[in-house]
Amino acid sequence: MRVLVLGADGYLGWPTCMYFSRMGHEVIGADNYFRRNAALALDCEALIPTPNLLQRAKIWQQVIEKKIAIHIGDVTNHEFLLSLFRAYHPDVVIHYAEQPSAPYSMLDRDKAAFTIQNNLLSTLNIVYAVKEVSPDCHIIKLGTMGEYGTPNIDIEEGWIQIQHKGKKDTFLFPRQASSLYHTTKIQDTDLLWFYVRTWGLRVTDLMQGPVYGISTDDADMDERLIPNFHYDEIFGTVLNRFIVQAIIGYPLTVYGKGGQTRGYLNIKDTLQCVYLAATQPAKPGELRIFNQISESFSVNELAEKVKIVGKKLGYDVKITHLENPRNEKEEHYYNPKYTGLLKLGLQPQYLTDGVLEGMFGIVEKYKNNINRDAIFRGVKW
Amino acid sequence: MRVLVLGADGYLGWPTCMYFSRMGHEVIGADNYFRRNAALALDCEALIPTPNLLQRAKIWQQVIEKKIAIHIGDVTNHEFLLSLFRAYHPDVVIHYAEQPSAPYSMLDRDKAAFTIQNNLLSTLNIVYAVKEVSPDCHIIKLGTMGEYGTPNIDIEEGWIQIQHKGKKDTFLFPRQASSLYHTTKIQDTDLLWFYVRTWGLRVTDLMQGPVYGISTDDADMDERLIPNFHYDEIFGTVLNRFIVQAIIGYPLTVYGKGGQTRGYLNIKDTLQCVYLAATQPAKPGELRIFNQISESFSVNELAEKVKIVGKKLGYDVKITHLENPRNEKEEHYYNPKYTGLLKLGLQPQYLTDGVLEGMFGIVEKYKNNINRDAIFRGVKW
Repeated sequence: MRVLVLGADGYLGWPTCMYFSRMGHEVIGADNYFRRNAALALDCEALIPTPNLLQRAKIWQQVIEKKIAIHIGDVTNHEFLLSLFRAYHPDVVIHYAEQPSAPYSMLDRDKAAFTIQNNLLSTLNIVYAVKEVSPDCHIIKLGTMGEYGTPNIDIEEGWIQIQHKGKKDTFLFPRQASSLYHTTKIQDTDLLWFYVRTWGLRVTDLMQGPVYGISTDDADMDERLIPNFHYDEIFGTVLNRFIVQAIIGYPLTVYGKGGQTRGYLNIKDTLQCVYLAATQPAKPGELRIFNQISESFSVNELAEKVKIVGKKLGYDVKITHLENPRNEKEEHYYNPKYTGLLKLGLQPQYLTDGVLEGMFGIVEKYKNNINRDAIFRGVKW
Repeated sequence: MRVLVLGADGYLGWPTCMYFSRMGHEVIGADNYFRRNAALALDCEALIPTPNLLQRAKIWQQVIEKKIAIHIGDVTNHEFLLSLFRAYHPDVVIHYAEQPSAPYSMLDRDKAAFTIQNNLLSTLNIVYAVKEVSPDCHIIKLGTMGEYGTPNIDIEEGWIQIQHKGKKDTFLFPRQASSLYHTTKIQDTDLLWFYVRTWGLRVTDLMQGPVYGISTDDADMDERLIPNFHYDEIFGTVLNRFIVQAIIGYPLTVYGKGGQTRGYLNIKDTLQCVYLAATQPAKPGELRIFNQISESFSVNELAEKVKIVGKKLGYDVKITHLENPRNEKEEHYYNPKYTGLLKLGLQPQYLTDGVLEGMFGIVEKYKNNINRDAIFRGVKW
C-alpha cells in the first residue's frame, strides 16, 4: 500500500509512519510543524527533544533500511496537498493534520478561528484531492470520543436507530462536545458524511479516546525515534501528565470531583487500530465509524493508579483536587460500545502496573527537561 | 431596541432593516457586498437593480424620516465586528451574513472553502463579540430547514428526546443536509450550541425554509427599496425562479420526479418571525430553535400553482422534468412541526393565487431585465 500520513510529525503521526514502513508499505509523511511552533510560542515544548521530521526519516533509514518520503507543507494549502496526491496517488490517506488541543482552542478568538479553519479546511482539501486525483483512496480520519460528550444513554459506534412516533430511521449518534476543538471534530464528521453520501468516498472515522504511552516497538530501537511526548496542559494528555507530575513531586491535578470518565488507549493500540482500518478499508460510499478505546477510567482512577505505581517505585505521589477550570460534568453516566476494532483483530494493551512502570522509566531519564510551569495554567472555559 | 443586522444588503437583510426601523427601533446594518460581487462575477445579477446600501438608507430616510446606520465591512474580520459592538452595544444581533447558496457552495473547492470560512468565522466572531462586549445581547441566527434533510421520522423543532436501551436523554434533532452550504449551517448550530452551554449566551436559531416574494409593506412605498430578487440557479429560490420562467415562456425546471417536499414561507412571514423572536428573546443559556415555515409543498405542487395562475394571467406556462443535477431524494416522508412561532404570534401569509398574481405583476414590470442564461446552469452534485 502507498500510505500518505498527514500530520506526520505529531505524537501519533511519526509512530504511524514507522509502523506502516516496517510492515512493508510505502510511506509519505507531511507536516507543517504547527505543533512544534505552537509549543515553542507557548513555552510548553515536548519532554524529549525530537529531531525534525526529515532527520527522523534519515535516522529511520539508517536503523531499518526503509525510506519514508517527507514533505514539509500545510494541508490547508490545497495546491500543496494536490501535489502530493498527483505525485504519489496514495491508496490510503491518514488524516492527523488537525489542531488537536482542547485548551488551545479555548485560549482566545484567534486560536479558536485557527482551529476551525485548520481542521475543516484540511478535511475539505483531502475530500477534494481524493475526488479529483484518487477517487478510490481510503480516507482514515482521527475523530474523538469527545464528539459524543457524556450522554445519559449508551454510546453506540457512530450510528443510532431512532424510533419516534411510530416511525424509525438511522442517524449519526448525537454529538455534543465540551470544547471548541472537539466541536470542530463534530463538524469534520458532518463534512465527511456529506461528501461520502454525495460522491461515494470511502471513509473510516476513528473516534479515539485520550492516548497515553511513549514506547512503541519502532521507537524503542533508537531514542531519537521516540514520539514527541507532551506533559503540559495544552498538548499533554492526562495520564502522560500525571506520570511527569509524579516524578517531580507535583501533586496530580484532578479537576473538580474527578468522576469524569473517558475511554483510553495505549499509543501501541492506536497504531494497531489505524493499521487494521487501513488494511481492511471502508467500502465506497461508506462512512465507517469505530470507537477507538481499550478501556474506561475516571480521572480519580487514573490518579490512583499512578499514585500506587509511583509509591512502589519510591516517589512521593500526592493527589490534589483543583477547582475545575472547564465546563464539564464531573459525575455522569458513561457506557460506550467499542467492539468494531476488536472484530477487525485489535489485541488491546491494557493499562497494567507494568505499562505504568515502563512510562515512569522513560520519563525518569528525561526529568531534568521538565518545565514545572507548563503543567498547569488553568485555561478556563 | 438597538438592532444590529449583519448581511443587511441581502434579500432578507434589507427588508429586515426597514421593518425594525419602521417599528421604532434603532437599526445598524452591515454588509460586505459579497452577494452583489458574486452575482456580478457569475453573471446572475438580481432582476431589479437595487441602489447600494448607503443609498437605500438615504432613500429610506427621505421616505419615512428614520435613520438606518450603515457600515460596509466583513463580519469575518473580527476587528470590524468588534468596532460595531463597541460603538453600538446592540440588544440583538441578527445574523444573515452567510454565504446562502447551495449551488454556489458546490461549484468548486475554493467556493466550498469560502463557504466554510465565511459562515463559521462570522458566527464565531459574533460569539466572541457578544462575550467580550455585550454578554446579554440576543443572537438571532438564520438556520435552515435543510439542516434536518428528509428523515423518515417527524421533524421536531430543533430537539428530540431519545429513548435507548432503557435510558433517555434530549439531543439536537439529527441533522443531515444535502449540500455543503446546508452542512455549514449544521456546523453553525454545533458551534452556537457549544458556546451557549459554555458561556450562557442567549441564541435563537430560526430553521427557515425557502423564502418567496418580493413585496413588503416597506418596499412597496418606493420601488428603490425593493429587496434584491434573484431568479437564477445560484441565488434564486425555487418559487421566485418559477415566476420569472413563466413570464418569459421558459418551461418550469422541475428536478427529477419533483416530489421533493419542503416548508416555504413568504418574505413577509420572515420579517414577522424575526421580529417576534427579537421582541420575545431567548433566555441566557438557551439555544431556542424554531422551524420557520408557513406551509409545505412539493416542487410539483409549486409548479402547478404557478402554471394555473400564469394561465389565468395569459401566460403559456409549461413544466419540464430535468434529470436531477443534485443528489437528493425525489420522493420521501416529510412531516415537520412548526408551532413555536405561531405561539409567539405569527400570522402566516399563505401562498394564495392572489399572492402569486402580485408576484407576477411586479416581475412583469422588469421582464426586460431577465437573463435567460442565468436560469439553469446545471450545477451538479
